[in-house]
Amino acid sequence: MNNVTTFRIESPAHDVFEAFVDPVKIGNFWFTSSSKRWEAGKTIALTYEEYNALVEIHVTEIEENRKIVFLWGEMEDEHAVTITFKEQDQASTIIEVNEDGFRENDEALLSKIVDNKEGWVFMLTCLKAYLECGVTQLRTGIVK
Amino acid sequence: MNNVTTFRIESPAHDVFEAFVDPVKIGNFWFTSSSKRWEAGKTIALTYEEYNALVEIHVTEIEENRKIVFLWGEMEDEHAVTITFKEQDQASTIIEVNEDGFRENDEALLSKIVDNKEGWVFMLTCLKAYLECGVTQLRTGIVK
Repeated sequence: MNNVTTFRIESPAHDVFEAFVDPVKIGNFWFTSSSKRWEAGKTIALTYEEYNALVEIHVTEIEENRKIVFLWGEMEDEHAVTITFKEQDQASTIIEVNEDGFRENDEALLSKIVDNKEGWVFMLTCLKAYLECGVTQLRTGIVK
Repeated sequence: MNNVTTFRIESPAHDVFEAFVDPVKIGNFWFTSSSKRWEAGKTIALTYEEYNALVEIHVTEIEENRKIVFLWGEMEDEHAVTITFKEQDQASTIIEVNEDGFRENDEALLSKIVDNKEGWVFMLTCLKAYLECGVTQLRTGIVK
C-alpha cells in the first residue's frame, strides 16, 4: 500500500529538486543535515537534531530536475519513496511524494500511514514556504 | 476514533485563537471566508473558493483564548472538532486539534483519516507561517 501527497510550488523544478539533493539546502525545510549530495547509489545520513533522530536513506534513482527514488526504513519493513517534479511552466512545479511499502496486514497500519501523511504534508508545506517566501523557521513546529 | 494534530506556534494564545474566530483573519491561512465571528451557538458558513467548497460548522463551545469546539460533517457522520490553545509563555502557544467521530467499522476509515490528517497538518503549518512570518500565500498549495 502506498501514500501519496501532492503540492504545487511556485518555483522552477530545478530549484525544487535542488532543495532535496543539495545538503546546504535541506536544513531550511526538513532535516537538520544531509551527509552528502544525493546521487544514485549513495547512502545518505540525515539528522533531525530537534527530534534526536538519525535516518539513513539509500538513493536508487535520480533524474535531474524530474525524479528522486530512495529506500528507507527498517530491514524487514523497507519503503520506497518516489519524488517526482513536473514543471508546469518556468515558475511552477507539481511535486508528488509517493511512499510505497506499507503492509496491509500490519496491525499498526492506520497509525503508521497517518503519521507518514503528517510528515510529508508538514515537510512539503515547509518546502513551499522556504522556496516561495524564504521562510525557514517552520520545520520544528510539529509536536510529537 | 479520533485524530489529533499538535503544533507549537511562536505567538500568544490570544493571537492564535483570534485567527480562527475573527472572519477577517481566516482567509490568511485556511478558508477563503467565514460568515461571522465564531461564538457558541452560532452556525458559521465557510467557503473555500479555490476548491469550490462550502462547509457549515456549528460552534458548540468557546473559551476565549483557550478552547473552541464545533461540529461538522454529514448528518449521519457528524464529527466534533476540539481546538485547544495552551500558552507556554507570552510568545508561544501549543495548539491541539482533536477531531472525533470516525467510525471504526467504516470501510473507508483509512482514506478518511489520512485525508483528515492531511487537512489539519496543512492548515496548521499555514497558520504558523501566517502568525510567525506574515506569509499568507500557502493555503492553496495542496493538490487534491
